[in-house]
Amino acid sequence: MNRVFLKKANDHKRELLHQVCRPVRTVTFQKDETAFQGLRVQAVDNFSWPIILKPHESVILDFGDHCVGYLHFSMRTLDHIADAPLKFRFSFGEFPLEIEKNPADYQGGLGSGWLQNEERTYTFLPYTTQLERRYAFRYLKIERLEDNTPFAVAFSDMYCDCVSAVTPKTLPSVSIPDNTLRRIYDVAVKTLQDCEQDVFEDGPKRDRRLWMGDLKLQAITDFVTFKNVDLFKRCMYLFAAYPCADGRISCCLFPDSPPHNDPWKLTDYALFFGCSLYDYTQAFNDEEFLNDLYPIAFEQLKITSSFWNEKTNTLDAEFFIDWCPDLDRSVAALGVYSYALTRIGALAKRLQKEEDMAFVAAEQARVKDALMSHYDADRKLFVTPQGQISWHSQIWAVLSGLLPQADAVALLARIKDDATPFTIRTPYMMHCYIDALFAVGEKQAAMAQVVAFWGDIVEKGFDCFPEIFNPQNDFESPYGAPEINSACHAWSCTPAYWIHRYYNEGDAV
Amino acid sequence: MNRVFLKKANDHKRELLHQVCRPVRTVTFQKDETAFQGLRVQAVDNFSWPIILKPHESVILDFGDHCVGYLHFSMRTLDHIADAPLKFRFSFGEFPLEIEKNPADYQGGLGSGWLQNEERTYTFLPYTTQLERRYAFRYLKIERLEDNTPFAVAFSDMYCDCVSAVTPKTLPSVSIPDNTLRRIYDVAVKTLQDCEQDVFEDGPKRDRRLWMGDLKLQAITDFVTFKNVDLFKRCMYLFAAYPCADGRISCCLFPDSPPHNDPWKLTDYALFFGCSLYDYTQAFNDEEFLNDLYPIAFEQLKITSSFWNEKTNTLDAEFFIDWCPDLDRSVAALGVYSYALTRIGALAKRLQKEEDMAFVAAEQARVKDALMSHYDADRKLFVTPQGQISWHSQIWAVLSGLLPQADAVALLARIKDDATPFTIRTPYMMHCYIDALFAVGEKQAAMAQVVAFWGDIVEKGFDCFPEIFNPQNDFESPYGAPEINSACHAWSCTPAYWIHRYYNEGDAV
Repeated sequence: MNRVFLKKANDHKRELLHQVCRPVRTVTFQKDETAFQGLRVQAVDNFSWPIILKPHESVILDFGDHCVGYLHFSMRTLDHIADAPLKFRFSFGEFPLEIEKNPADYQGGLGSGWLQNEERTYTFLPYTTQLERRYAFRYLKIERLEDNTPFAVAFSDMYCDCVSAVTPKTLPSVSIPDNTLRRIYDVAVKTLQDCEQDVFEDGPKRDRRLWMGDLKLQAITDFVTFKNVDLFKRCMYLFAAYPCADGRISCCLFPDSPPHNDPWKLTDYALFFGCSLYDYTQAFNDEEFLNDLYPIAFEQLKITSSFWNEKTNTLDAEFFIDWCPDLDRSVAALGVYSYALTRIGALAKRLQKEEDMAFVAAEQARVKDALMSHYDADRKLFVTPQGQISWHSQIWAVLSGLLPQADAVALLARIKDDATPFTIRTPYMMHCYIDALFAVGEKQAAMAQVVAFWGDIVEKGFDCFPEIFNPQNDFESPYGAPEINSACHAWSCTPAYWIHRYYNEGDAV
Repeated sequence: MNRVFLKKANDHKRELLHQVCRPVRTVTFQKDETAFQGLRVQAVDNFSWPIILKPHESVILDFGDHCVGYLHFSMRTLDHIADAPLKFRFSFGEFPLEIEKNPADYQGGLGSGWLQNEERTYTFLPYTTQLERRYAFRYLKIERLEDNTPFAVAFSDMYCDCVSAVTPKTLPSVSIPDNTLRRIYDVAVKTLQDCEQDVFEDGPKRDRRLWMGDLKLQAITDFVTFKNVDLFKRCMYLFAAYPCADGRISCCLFPDSPPHNDPWKLTDYALFFGCSLYDYTQAFNDEEFLNDLYPIAFEQLKITSSFWNEKTNTLDAEFFIDWCPDLDRSVAALGVYSYALTRIGALAKRLQKEEDMAFVAAEQARVKDALMSHYDADRKLFVTPQGQISWHSQIWAVLSGLLPQADAVALLARIKDDATPFTIRTPYMMHCYIDALFAVGEKQAAMAQVVAFWGDIVEKGFDCFPEIFNPQNDFESPYGAPEINSACHAWSCTPAYWIHRYYNEGDAV
């Protein structure tokens, strides 16, 4: 652990901002095949305070928008002294299925503790309290559990003390004439806002962690929206403070006190440290920060270089690339490496590091040869050593910057006609695809993807953009349990970045 | 609500004292017909910190003594990052059955919220926290509930922040040569200590309320042990501040902010307000307090008098007398009224209230006639209008003070030979019996009762004295559920008072 960087990370720590959000109505969830996941939210008439629960009753409250924070409320009795303790189950959901699914039936692969429900006993009324755990939710179901207490309980003063490092009040005004894009932009910004906490979290419900891959996308979006530079610098210093034993940047930090890193190593995420440093340096003039972190960024290239396998023309290291079962990542990994060489090489040039620039140039030549060795001239697509054709290989081949523009355009067109099952499964990969389209000048096609993919999410009733979205399957889940999916996930926030570029940088793109 | 008295009540509020109590061993509960309730506590070898729980494991911790307070603890992982939230169930028990019984099987008549168990989720480790609810317990079972978290959790720094208004450090030294009485005295004092909180509670597990009947017994015991006069005065002022609508002292106050009273009216408890004022005045010289509260005490006599039913020679009002199903309380009620007339009359005399004294004398004459009208000269026992013979009628006839001593001695001897099912069911009524025996000079017989009844409780392994104890039935419960019984109950603390009187006031009794 590097104490200098940890101190700088903590120097950039800021108090969170608070915003009160109250329930706006009570609802039920009705079975409806035309609704997302088959559940339609139906308002209950005559909502008013207080919310009254008789024994064994329950209620579902709708807070009107996605909340990240702490539930506060008061309770009192109306018709009888509370002469015995009360027991409630509080079930929080970002979406209806999360509440409707019985936790006892959970079969997912992730820890069931992520299910957002709690039981609480209250000995005396009147009582004002808050729940200790931070929740991410729009809906809250309250069930009264205890027996033999024949009196009604009235809930009042209920609100979520919502927390975030940022507030929409500081957002720049952006003119977005298209209504669909306007709505997508707003939801994207809300997604980013709810993920900006003590660190850039991947998702405020789950996993509440600082992932380098997510940070890279959050940062570029933040730079054109909230401009919360302190939080970005805090996160970068945290990564610098807690590297892996071999010097690689951790793929993920657990931000709690004391922070600690995940032993899992993902080389694309390690390389993205330097890419984010590049993005920040492009957007802001901050020599001190660049000088602090450049050596670590460059070290990631050196480490990656050590994984060369000359026989297979690949890198013998684990890359994330995307959540996509059985994906052969080796060609995409070369594209990522080249992408990072270009950006970290630009920083080397800016800092006049001649030796580093020479290393980068030599590596780029090696990557180019390796990458092209995987190009199948007959099929006119990149094919992995396992014989796999994937969107991922083609997209990262384009993002490598090593292909002539016309070839890159053709490649992106060609993969659309291929029947490969290795297609885009996540908003994260969708971002890479749009990045590639922008890179080759296909701006209209890129914006059409934004509208098609994120517009569909908005149509389905999401308040924020989720970690996973499959238009063909509402129940898609990387964890075998859609109720545990994160419905507000930072890597899905980049439409705000693309919409901003589309409208504000115009032909400069 | 009387604001003057409420202010005085709050002027006597004191900060609680804190004492740390830590687990001393891990145990299991073994089925054993020779043990209390068929459960024997068996130590597990090799207890040491930290306590380690793997997925789906559980442990039972023994804190070594009865605790009333708040559980604090720290958690960390040993072999893996805690990459998902943890869920635990904490089950607290004053005695093993409370933990062994499945809460889902609860069939009792009291609110199930009294069962002392909680589920808690913890999102991040390491983490240090406390549980919000105050528990009364000796044993704590911790079960790890969540799925798919393949790592061990270590608990450390676990303790109960025990609270009480008093500490044994201030107890007077009492010489008690008899070992059994010494042990009974110590357990009685511990029982009282754990019930002295923001008010004198009936039981720190349940119902955590200020009952006038319990306060009367707690007060006389406190006056010879902790001498926590502030707490007594606070409680008396609270009762004075929150009378029933008809002027009667409430039988019970819920001490929380704001305090409120139970609408249930028990006339014996209303009369005991003046009896406790008398006991306090006898023990301490406090004219201001007496002058404050005497008018209310005297008013209880006036109100009781209004319940006279001349036809039946009884009082048309509800009395508690004892927990004893189907008991006809009418004769005992007359004894209670006379008992109160004597004591409040003595206060009237001290304050030279001539008119009040005349009222008391007239009422005493009327009670005497009424009481004697229920004496069955053939059976030589008091018989209620329903034709019921009970220990309660005889004991309160003696405590009325209206019988010649020889008759009273004979009466107490005679009821022992009667086969009535209306016998003593609670430590509270046992106290009244001992009070009657002391009143007629049967000091040795009284102390034999103390040894027999409370000595048996100690033998059964209780750390404090319970609300209910039937030597013939370990599962006796007023609520149809022995697991919800209170194992530390203030009305069972009076052995310390009797032992103190026995040894320290000697022949003066």
